Amino acid sequence: MTDGKRMWGGRFRAETDARVQAFTSSWRFDRRLWPYDIAGSIAHARMLAACGIITLQEGETLVAGLERVREELAQGTFPFRQEYEDIHMNIEVRLTELVGPVGGKLHTARSRNDQVATDMHMYIMDECRAIQEGIVVLQGVLLDKAEKELDTVMPGYTHLQRAQPILYSHYLLAYFEMLARDYERFADCYGRANRLPLGAGALAGTTFPIDRQSVAQELGFAEVYRNSIDAVSDRDFVIEFLAAAAITMLHLSRLCEELIIWCSQEFGFLEMDDSFATGSSIMPQKKNPDVAELVRGKTGRVYGSLISLLTTMKGLPLAYHTDMQEDKQCTFDAVDTLRDCLHLVAGMMDTVQVRRERMAAAVEEDFSNATDLADYLVRQGLPFREAHAVVGRLVLDCLAQGKRLGDLSNEEWQAASPLLGEDARQAIDPRQCVAKRCSEGGTSPAMVAQALAVARQSLAKRWPDDKEN
Amino acid sequence: MTDGKRMWGGRFRAETDARVQAFTSSWRFDRRLWPYDIAGSIAHARMLAACGIITLQEGETLVAGLERVREELAQGTFPFRQEYEDIHMNIEVRLTELVGPVGGKLHTARSRNDQVATDMHMYIMDECRAIQEGIVVLQGVLLDKAEKELDTVMPGYTHLQRAQPILYSHYLLAYFEMLARDYERFADCYGRANRLPLGAGALAGTTFPIDRQSVAQELGFAEVYRNSIDAVSDRDFVIEFLAAAAITMLHLSRLCEELIIWCSQEFGFLEMDDSFATGSSIMPQKKNPDVAELVRGKTGRVYGSLISLLTTMKGLPLAYHTDMQEDKQCTFDAVDTLRDCLHLVAGMMDTVQVRRERMAAAVEEDFSNATDLADYLVRQGLPFREAHAVVGRLVLDCLAQGKRLGDLSNEEWQAASPLLGEDARQAIDPRQCVAKRCSEGGTSPAMVAQALAVARQSLAKRWPDDKEN
Amino acid sequence: MTDGKRMWGGRFRAETDARVQAFTSSWRFDRRLWPYDIAGSIAHARMLAACGIITLQEGETLVAGLERVREELAQGTFPFRQEYEDIHMNIEVRLTELVGPVGGKLHTARSRNDQVATDMHMYIMDECRAIQEGIVVLQGVLLDKAEKELDTVMPGYTHLQRAQPILYSHYLLAYFEMLARDYERFADCYGRANRLPLGAGALAGTTFPIDRQSVAQELGFAEVYRNSIDAVSDRDFVIEFLAAAAITMLHLSRLCEELIIWCSQEFGFLEMDDSFATGSSIMPQKKNPDVAELVRGKTGRVYGSLISLLTTMKGLPLAYHTDMQEDKQCTFDAVDTLRDCLHLVAGMMDTVQVRRERMAAAVEEDFSNATDLADYLVRQGLPFREAHAVVGRLVLDCLAQGKRLGDLSNEEWQAASPLLGEDARQAIDPRQCVAKRCSEGGTSPAMVAQALAVARQSLAKRWPDDKEN
Amino acid sequence: MTDGKRMWGGRFRAETDARVQAFTSSWRFDRRLWPYDIAGSIAHARMLAACGIITLQEGETLVAGLERVREELAQGTFPFRQEYEDIHMNIEVRLTELVGPVGGKLHTARSRNDQVATDMHMYIMDECRAIQEGIVVLQGVLLDKAEKELDTVMPGYTHLQRAQPILYSHYLLAYFEMLARDYERFADCYGRANRLPLGAGALAGTTFPIDRQSVAQELGFAEVYRNSIDAVSDRDFVIEFLAAAAITMLHLSRLCEELIIWCSQEFGFLEMDDSFATGSSIMPQKKNPDVAELVRGKTGRVYGSLISLLTTMKGLPLAYHTDMQEDKQCTFDAVDTLRDCLHLVAGMMDTVQVRRERMAAAVEEDFSNATDLADYLVRQGLPFREAHAVVGRLVLDCLAQGKRLGDLSNEEWQAASPLLGEDARQAIDPRQCVAKRCSEGGTSPAMVAQALAVARQSLAKRWPDDKEN
Repeated sequence: MTDGKRMWGGRFRAETDARVQAFTSSWRFDRRLWPYDIAGSIAHARMLAACGIITLQEGETLVAGLERVREELAQGTFPFRQEYEDIHMNIEVRLTELVGPVGGKLHTARSRNDQVATDMHMYIMDECRAIQEGIVVLQGVLLDKAEKELDTVMPGYTHLQRAQPILYSHYLLAYFEMLARDYERFADCYGRANRLPLGAGALAGTTFPIDRQSVAQELGFAEVYRNSIDAVSDRDFVIEFLAAAAITMLHLSRLCEELIIWCSQEFGFLEMDDSFATGSSIMPQKKNPDVAELVRGKTGRVYGSLISLLTTMKGLPLAYHTDMQEDKQCTFDAVDTLRDCLHLVAGMMDTVQVRRERMAAAVEEDFSNATDLADYLVRQGLPFREAHAVVGRLVLDCLAQGKRLGDLSNEEWQAASPLLGEDARQAIDPRQCVAKRCSEGGTSPAMVAQALAVARQSLAKRWPDDKEN
Repeated sequence: MTDGKRMWGGRFRAETDARVQAFTSSWRFDRRLWPYDIAGSIAHARMLAACGIITLQEGETLVAGLERVREELAQGTFPFRQEYEDIHMNIEVRLTELVGPVGGKLHTARSRNDQVATDMHMYIMDECRAIQEGIVVLQGVLLDKAEKELDTVMPGYTHLQRAQPILYSHYLLAYFEMLARDYERFADCYGRANRLPLGAGALAGTTFPIDRQSVAQELGFAEVYRNSIDAVSDRDFVIEFLAAAAITMLHLSRLCEELIIWCSQEFGFLEMDDSFATGSSIMPQKKNPDVAELVRGKTGRVYGSLISLLTTMKGLPLAYHTDMQEDKQCTFDAVDTLRDCLHLVAGMMDTVQVRRERMAAAVEEDFSNATDLADYLVRQGLPFREAHAVVGRLVLDCLAQGKRLGDLSNEEWQAASPLLGEDARQAIDPRQCVAKRCSEGGTSPAMVAQALAVARQSLAKRWPDDKEN
Repeated sequence: MTDGKRMWGGRFRAETDARVQAFTSSWRFDRRLWPYDIAGSIAHARMLAACGIITLQEGETLVAGLERVREELAQGTFPFRQEYEDIHMNIEVRLTELVGPVGGKLHTARSRNDQVATDMHMYIMDECRAIQEGIVVLQGVLLDKAEKELDTVMPGYTHLQRAQPILYSHYLLAYFEMLARDYERFADCYGRANRLPLGAGALAGTTFPIDRQSVAQELGFAEVYRNSIDAVSDRDFVIEFLAAAAITMLHLSRLCEELIIWCSQEFGFLEMDDSFATGSSIMPQKKNPDVAELVRGKTGRVYGSLISLLTTMKGLPLAYHTDMQEDKQCTFDAVDTLRDCLHLVAGMMDTVQVRRERMAAAVEEDFSNATDLADYLVRQGLPFREAHAVVGRLVLDCLAQGKRLGDLSNEEWQAASPLLGEDARQAIDPRQCVAKRCSEGGTSPAMVAQALAVARQSLAKRWPDDKEN
Repeated sequence: MTDGKRMWGGRFRAETDARVQAFTSSWRFDRRLWPYDIAGSIAHARMLAACGIITLQEGETLVAGLERVREELAQGTFPFRQEYEDIHMNIEVRLTELVGPVGGKLHTARSRNDQVATDMHMYIMDECRAIQEGIVVLQGVLLDKAEKELDTVMPGYTHLQRAQPILYSHYLLAYFEMLARDYERFADCYGRANRLPLGAGALAGTTFPIDRQSVAQELGFAEVYRNSIDAVSDRDFVIEFLAAAAITMLHLSRLCEELIIWCSQEFGFLEMDDSFATGSSIMPQKKNPDVAELVRGKTGRVYGSLISLLTTMKGLPLAYHTDMQEDKQCTFDAVDTLRDCLHLVAGMMDTVQVRRERMAAAVEEDFSNATDLADYLVRQGLPFREAHAVVGRLVLDCLAQGKRLGDLSNEEWQAASPLLGEDARQAIDPRQCVAKRCSEGGTSPAMVAQALAVARQSLAKRWPDDKEN
């Protein structure tokens, strides 16, 4: 008979102890936070000394020790130790090795709960900036391309059916706008993350006469958390970051979907640069838009990170629970993914070849000027709904005869509606169709040029401190 | 032999046509948008007339007709018709019945794409406001309760283990802070939604000399979309709304989880008012915290709405696709859910009975004052890490003997550390532990009273236009 | 000064009580479960009588009363009452009205926890069957179409780039296979749902000498839950159903994506039947694949339902919590969505017009025969990797000269590789390329015909009880 | 003025090329698949030789070379090279180094599309087995503990309110049942993954006379994919695996939530073994249930993986797209997470200390015997609904007087209902309440002992090939 006990045997405990340690340990991934941990500890030590909680001498010793630790971490000589569960303990232990027992005073008036939260805040704030920079670079590429393609007419689509002719520049500027909203969302996220948790202690504040404002000032925080329980329980700023990242990925996924469709032999509007495409292991003729596919695919990954943290935080009582340690890996992965994707999409858009002749040919051969014929009739006094019906019938006639609207004779036009004069021919020339859409935000070259100027200006404002000039 | 064809028979087409109509039709749910659709159409009609695209007479006729339609909708006499797929067509058809063929002119220089987007923008903006109001009401309840419980000491928890004593008021203010961030997120969402799509046409703008700024002004929009393709392709504002809703639900789920745990016989810190609890169909003694459970459960629902729209929009080429029609039901459901939950949690918090004696008893019987004993040792000069170790050993001794820290004799204290003087007894009295946590944002009554005043002020600022005064 | 209290006023309690009732009430949506509730109650009453827990007379009275209630529900005359929170109480109250106080005996040895779980089990089992029927109908359409298109050659794609020519029938059969797996998943889900919770009581079983096996038998359950706590806490079967639904929607979304791309003017491989397309309110020429777009969009909705219930159930202690009431609406919505989508995709595939000439033209004009040329070289003895390189260079030459592989002269071929003989020309004829892919599961007409026969047979086996023959 | 171009400078291209390579490269994570890749290649090479597509000599050379590569990989001496994007190319390149140009023949009649799919199938099948083993080990722990606690009575909960007394063993068996369903779901997933894609080529099959059945047999697959396009496009088996993993994690999250609540000072039913708990950096008295929290938190992570792949696959046209490369990391992460969690929960349940006296005390002090009093009245002839009302009033009286049901005098009982005799006292003794719940699946010791025997038997059947006997 099978004895359930024997299945996993008596060695269970010993083996498990090691697995418990491995399971709960986080230094393998949270060591990414070391620059923030060191900076936060230095600010904390200085404050402790300034407030008389430790002596000035002790403060200086701690700061000097932390700077040595920073050096070791920056140069890759820091001795990580498995037995200390996270980056924070690893640093404190090393500090104490370097400076002696006074190292144990660093954690006065502090808990790992407020310490970890502080590190994550600083990390998120830095990454908001980095991603905003990635967004601006991509926006810059879009503007450069849009400036070069002010003459490039292509079909505009709804339902992936040709709808009305547009400028390729106008299309590019649509993405510029989406990215501008993304930029703002990261700015909002930054603003809400810009609040110092340190000083909240484990959850209730501390009995030591600390000065949180001075720490906030040294670390560059705009303010401090107003409630100590909230300070250590809050991961809103991480979720908000992931939500902003998910929306940005959504935008990139739409752009990539279009790139993939437009690079198909059938559309042929774009051709990937060789550096952004790969071949096939079996089909010698293939040129696959791998990067665009991968960016589109990685959208799921960032959505997954968002739902992951939302789920983890759901229904968690206050204050800190170890569940919250799960905020890190999904966030680090989303950060890396989004930064890479922004960079690569910028490179892809910078190098993708526009096949203007294919776009122009597509515009000529279809009925995307039908709205303009209806608008012409409206200007002759017909209510829009009737004009729409007249043109709808003309399109059906054309399809039956294999003709386009412009191929119909004056007689055929007149038969459809006596209001259709010779001058309607001009109204349905694709370039005319584009040129006449000069309503605010429309696709006419004049409006697009104006939009470009505004966009260029708004982008310039975002980098008053241009690092390259 | 089975003939695949016969399985679904020849009537397929006819039956399907009706199902296609039912499947694509949206008026059963999008009719909720009628107030915005009417308002948008009136502004559009006025602008068309002002710009000379239709005559002033025609404009007045359209506006008057739309006001009659509005009346019918408000009074429930509007004749909805299944054969018209959405609220927009239903309204236009009814308008034309009422005013004659001129009704057909309303759609001049407009597409359903920009029309629907405009309605959704106005809806989201209104609901941002409504939810902010719900947040403020709940915040008000929390403040009122916090003011009444400034003397109520209870255990503060981390890992659901008793950590340090706190004020119940301090705990309530943690949720006040979370809700304050939620309020801000809806404000940001409102700000980004505050942009008029109307005038974008199907995707490319229009050939008519429209004036989008005047429409924006009449409808109360701060600005217009700068790019017509973006205007009809964008659903960021809806997703951002859903993300803000998901985070708010996350906060409510945490509060409800705690309410449920605290209403258990074992904790017994709170007791639900009868009006917010239900009984059991089988167990006569039960008093179940149904409302709290349901709010916690509905968190999944709002997360579902968020992931639903993120998924739907992923990889969608520009501009409008019918997929985007799926933005409505998930959003309407999230709006209803969140509004109800905010209202009910406010009522629940307003009526829940605080069992102060149970909270006080819990604080007395445990070791949540251990940190304070360690802090005491630190003040006598011991590094924190060593003080932590000393007290840890004392706790183990107590557990072995079934004692609390205060039950140990002076001799036992001295044996543990010669630094432990008689005055340490005072340091570990729970009320003292609370009182001494007077760091900024801490749980001492003085800090909490100050936080309350700040909170009350910030709330007052949000309702400068208090409707009841 | 603003008085927080006044903001929501003193009427709070009264108003809230009504909202609590509305909030916790479920009859508006759970009434869909009435057929199962009645059937479950009848089986329960019969068992109570058979076991002597109530008298035979009482049993008969209850059954007769329940049958009258069933009649009322079926005919729409049942008086729903708001004050009773769910369909179960509504039915019991009505029963007691009809049969007097003995109605109160129905709930003996039963709790709403096991009652509701039983209803959901029966519902899910029925819907597994219904969805399997929808799957089979769609599979039937795919087979019919595949049989008609055994001569239709089209480009096969990877990365949306033309890869190798395939039969359109072969493509259709790929979806047949996916749907076959979906069918199996619903069968597995049915199997695991096929277990009776009734008799578990609130959570611990009952003190009455009930006979669960007889109830299971009467209701058609294969077995009973082995553990009473599990019986009322388990919603696995619903989540598993939603996961199966999500995967099926994923498959439909892929099919719809391709339909949409193939209906574009650029691809032009398919044309939607008018009954499955709609026009534009502004562009007279448009024919939009609305149904395909909507199915694709609704995929997000079903994913949302899945994540919604997963989230709701996460971390829920045993046994029943009101959170679990949230299993219903998301499931009902997913059921309706999936059933509609299966039906409509069947209709769409049945009516969509295949533009064979466009497919054939596409196959002729590209390099999707390049693999076949490489395979030819391999057969002459070249290692595959070298053959791949030779053909890759030839394709580059062709692209530079605007030629296809077959346009190259014998000399050019020989220059590329002396192994390229005249007979290679035959190897790269598209129909030959298709015909030669006769590996098992390959696209050659012979293999596809065989696959069709197997598919037809497997489908026939699924409907041994064909209702129409 | 800012020049957009200068922002990212001219070095863009070069820097990007390296990033494109890093972005699309997968060997850092897909090298986990090497055992499957080698096994698949050996089977493929043998088949090519057996079918005469390569010579027997060539076949032997390839197999011998692959075995050397396997050796290198197993021993960690394999030279990974960054410039080859994935594990498959790394292996093929190394093979060719070892055996010369004949290495290039291995890829004959194969594409990376079917090769990668084959590897993933084998991986998923192996992991299904591994996770089933982890499930069985945890089930074994639950059974062992259940056997030891057949006398341990504790309160059973619904709504986290005490409901009816149960055996702790009965509670443990509820999780045994959930895990039994999880086991089955992985078996179903295994069954559907058990199908060989190799031989599908890029998407259309191959022109070489391969023998897929022999490859399937050698690799242990039950059958081959029937359609080549489906074979390379399908990731159902991965999603189904992730869905099964998500449900298993859901179960673990419920168990962990209860462990955390029961380890609180207030409940105090369980105490974590020191090896599964950690202390606090600041609070010396803390003993935190970290492992349980972390398992609960990681549930979000596995949900995230599921939604990630569902999103990635949504709307993807057939056949292979690079998006599908994103199936790996989320799956590997979910596998590692689930395996660890199962193992650690087993260890935690094996070592957690049951505080029987606390459980017993809790049962004595409450009203969880109220149902039994109502059942008593029903047995005296009262309809259940009336009995429920009588007992409900008694409970209210008790609460008002601070008494329990058994504290009431005979007179008070009689006043409530003349049917309440002296013998009712016995009916409400907690151990009697448990003992009498002897309906099938109920909590009585007799039923639980029987359930244990059945469970033990079912578990034994799962390991007919017990490795330790």
